[in-house]
Amino acid sequence: VYAVAFSPDGKRIASGSADKTVRLWDVTTGQELFALRGHSVMISQDCVAFAPDGKFLFTADWSGTMKFWHAATGEESTTRTH
Amino acid sequence: VYAVAFSPDGKRIASGSADKTVRLWDVTTGQELFALRGHSVMISQDCVAFAPDGKFLFTADWSGTMKFWHAATGEESTTRTH
Amino acid sequence: VYAVAFSPDGKRIASGSADKTVRLWDVTTGQELFALRGHSVMISQDCVAFAPDGKFLFTADWSGTMKFWHAATGEESTTRTH
Amino acid sequence: VYAVAFSPDGKRIASGSADKTVRLWDVTTGQELFALRGHSVMISQDCVAFAPDGKFLFTADWSGTMKFWHAATGEESTTRTH
Repeated sequence: VYAVAFSPDGKRIASGSADKTVRLWDVTTGQELFALRGHSVMISQDCVAFAPDGKFLFTADWSGTMKFWHAATGEESTTRTH
Repeated sequence: VYAVAFSPDGKRIASGSADKTVRLWDVTTGQELFALRGHSVMISQDCVAFAPDGKFLFTADWSGTMKFWHAATGEESTTRTH
Repeated sequence: VYAVAFSPDGKRIASGSADKTVRLWDVTTGQELFALRGHSVMISQDCVAFAPDGKFLFTADWSGTMKFWHAATGEESTTRTH
Repeated sequence: VYAVAFSPDGKRIASGSADKTVRLWDVTTGQELFALRGHSVMISQDCVAFAPDGKFLFTADWSGTMKFWHAATGEESTTRTH
């Protein structure tokens, strides 16, 4: 695991790992909610972040791919490269 | 030390280090409160985080093990792998 | 991408990457707003930060160069070395 | 520069660098306020943090030395090892 972030409401946590996925977890139950797939290389250290209003999750990887995800559904919103 | 986090109320700090433990410290006195044992490899950089309400502490290591801890008692709550 | 930060109002995100630029993005549209140029080496991991009032963006690189930027315009404000 | 943190009031920023010092800067003027000396090895990545009330600054290095500093004066408060 290379990056973790709590959602602003504290109910969920996101983890980025060597398997190239980002996963969302329910803090109370420990249940996995979503596996966000789409990055083709490892998530960068500390490059998983929730928007302050909790609606979007932002992730970035070592190849320069950045993705916005809808935090409520785990759907990918936008991809950019930097 | 590879990861540090203040509790939201500012009274405690958590540190993750090469000895595989996470330790909780009283900010005012500098006293060690708890040594959280259970990770079998080093804590990942920046992968120690308090929940916004301060009740849970989340830690993750390089092998993919993630743990939730009760921040008030230092007891382990849940373990997951990613 | 080695560093990401949401603006405090959640409307923008800053990314630091191997191309030595820092870029500001509109969260809603995914549009690139500014490319902040001036660092001559890679941005350090996790060394992109918005001031709490959102007016300034702070960035630092591996050579010790630190820069303050006006977040609204992308103009460089101050450079220091550490 | 390996670690940066804004003070909660946004008036100062702390930087940790390869010279083993942590420096506090005035955000508005860019002036260096204090050089915090005492770490004998490099500050760890992302291991510089202000307490939520802004009174203390916490720093940690790769050797396991952790220090609390009075943020207002730059004086060292406590040293611990982890």
